[in-house]
Amino acid sequence: MLKSLIPVFLCFLLICCSSFMKAQGQQENKKFITETGYLLFLPQDYAKDAQKRWPMILFLHGSGERGTVIDSVKKHGPPKIVEQKKDFPFIVVSPQCAPGENWSANTLNKLVDEIIKNNRVDTNRMYLTGLSMGGYGTWEYALRFPDRFAAIAPVCGGGDPGRVWSIRSLPIWVFHGAKDLAVPIKQSEDMVNALKKVGNDVKFTVYPEAGHDSWTETYNNPALYEWFLKHKRKAKIAIKVNPTVYDAYIGVYELEPHFSLTILKENNRLFVQPTDQPKIELHPETEKDFFIKEVNAQISFVKDSKGKVTELVLHQDGDKSARKVK
Amino acid sequence: MLKSLIPVFLCFLLICCSSFMKAQGQQENKKFITETGYLLFLPQDYAKDAQKRWPMILFLHGSGERGTVIDSVKKHGPPKIVEQKKDFPFIVVSPQCAPGENWSANTLNKLVDEIIKNNRVDTNRMYLTGLSMGGYGTWEYALRFPDRFAAIAPVCGGGDPGRVWSIRSLPIWVFHGAKDLAVPIKQSEDMVNALKKVGNDVKFTVYPEAGHDSWTETYNNPALYEWFLKHKRKAKIAIKVNPTVYDAYIGVYELEPHFSLTILKENNRLFVQPTDQPKIELHPETEKDFFIKEVNAQISFVKDSKGKVTELVLHQDGDKSARKVK
Repeated sequence: MLKSLIPVFLCFLLICCSSFMKAQGQQENKKFITETGYLLFLPQDYAKDAQKRWPMILFLHGSGERGTVIDSVKKHGPPKIVEQKKDFPFIVVSPQCAPGENWSANTLNKLVDEIIKNNRVDTNRMYLTGLSMGGYGTWEYALRFPDRFAAIAPVCGGGDPGRVWSIRSLPIWVFHGAKDLAVPIKQSEDMVNALKKVGNDVKFTVYPEAGHDSWTETYNNPALYEWFLKHKRKAKIAIKVNPTVYDAYIGVYELEPHFSLTILKENNRLFVQPTDQPKIELHPETEKDFFIKEVNAQISFVKDSKGKVTELVLHQDGDKSARKVK
Repeated sequence: MLKSLIPVFLCFLLICCSSFMKAQGQQENKKFITETGYLLFLPQDYAKDAQKRWPMILFLHGSGERGTVIDSVKKHGPPKIVEQKKDFPFIVVSPQCAPGENWSANTLNKLVDEIIKNNRVDTNRMYLTGLSMGGYGTWEYALRFPDRFAAIAPVCGGGDPGRVWSIRSLPIWVFHGAKDLAVPIKQSEDMVNALKKVGNDVKFTVYPEAGHDSWTETYNNPALYEWFLKHKRKAKIAIKVNPTVYDAYIGVYELEPHFSLTILKENNRLFVQPTDQPKIELHPETEKDFFIKEVNAQISFVKDSKGKVTELVLHQDGDKSARKVK
């Protein structure tokens, strides 16, 4: 009896050691977990029809609502409205930013993936809006993932006007108070002007007497939600192009000293190969504008007055010209 | 017997319903979890002395090692070295970026908090390094949290030269290959030049024949680790200033139309109050440079040739001048 206890005791010792002793002189795999709290609103009639998919609004709050108390998020905008309006006809997702943090497009994009997985979202009618810091977040998320949303409405935010090319076809409604001291209206104006230059028919509502709070009037206005619902997501679809058009594009375009983009035609398809990188297929959006499926980058070819292709423009985190050198 | 079963059955039904039914017409609190995998190396002798605190290296890999297979992280740099060198005298933390993501200073900073909580880290001897995308991550993390590390070593990365003021006292060693086609050496040069302008005695090692791989030579060089260990973290400490010095600073400084910083003196302490915001204390780093404890922002006062204070410079995500108007 006494003898048989020894292995049990040894086992116990081994378990203790392994759990209390840290691995030394070797690398251990570990996981670091971060949590994003969010409010999820499903419309009153969500369960009535188990097949129906619902439009979705992702709402990004301002810097004052950051923190760990999720109810702060109900202070303004859609998550405030649905507290009263239980038949609000959208799924509303309202995440909360941790103290001191800014909105991360990557994290939000993964959150949207999860929402879609677990709820009946109409993925062609997803809308993005936010105020102040959330207005900045709205611009940045759309610039990073231009094909994700059907329409966006940034309220008193700002973004990088140099990168708007990728959202030139996205329906956008911008709001700002003319007397905003926290985020100057110039932040919105710069984005609106840049968008107009690339042909985006952006809507811009300026409240002449409003200061920083341009959101109360915006989110109380039923016209915003009607405008959202008018829009469906336009995914980039490759058009059919006569492959002989591609011949004029073939060549080498110098982006920087020692860094070029080589344009190739193979089996009637067009490819780009950056120096020291594998080639990637270019899909025609128009006869001169091409997109890449793997990353958020587009290429436009530019002709001179005689119709000769002289350069290309790479649209990726801004626009960069590359002169045709071969 | 049959009767007593009914409540149990009802209970079971209720549990089923509540878990399968979604809350409708009301907002639900939810949590979204993201995981960051990382490798943790503890030196061979870590357990020998239960009091000893160890220096730490946080290593940020390049874009090629992103993914979900944590062993990719061992391809280059410190996590590769410790696979052989079990007596490497640092705790080494090597997180992995998810596919398509970039390094997030906020997430990394929280990871460092957790490492400190669970391991015997000498928080005055924490070092940050990374290559390519991890070089960019190194610059960005240091710019966002300039007081966290004792020294940093960005390898073939880049950053925002307009924001270097806050890291003007941080020991930095920069590495780059002169023939790098993936990240042009100009990216490092711009940071080095900007740092020199603000008085940082930055070290810059250029490998004249190296292309993008400037990391193998860097991380194989024992001099890097010796250089790290020479540096201890310098936290910003307020100096003693004769409060009469503050009198010249009192006034209103216009940062933008309708947005000013008011400098106040109360009980011999100096405060800044931005338009429509609460006042925050300014702590003297020198007689003319002040820091704020709550956020990464500093203020320097500028005198003209006659010794009169004419403007201040706000160092926050870059430098902005504000003219004294009152």
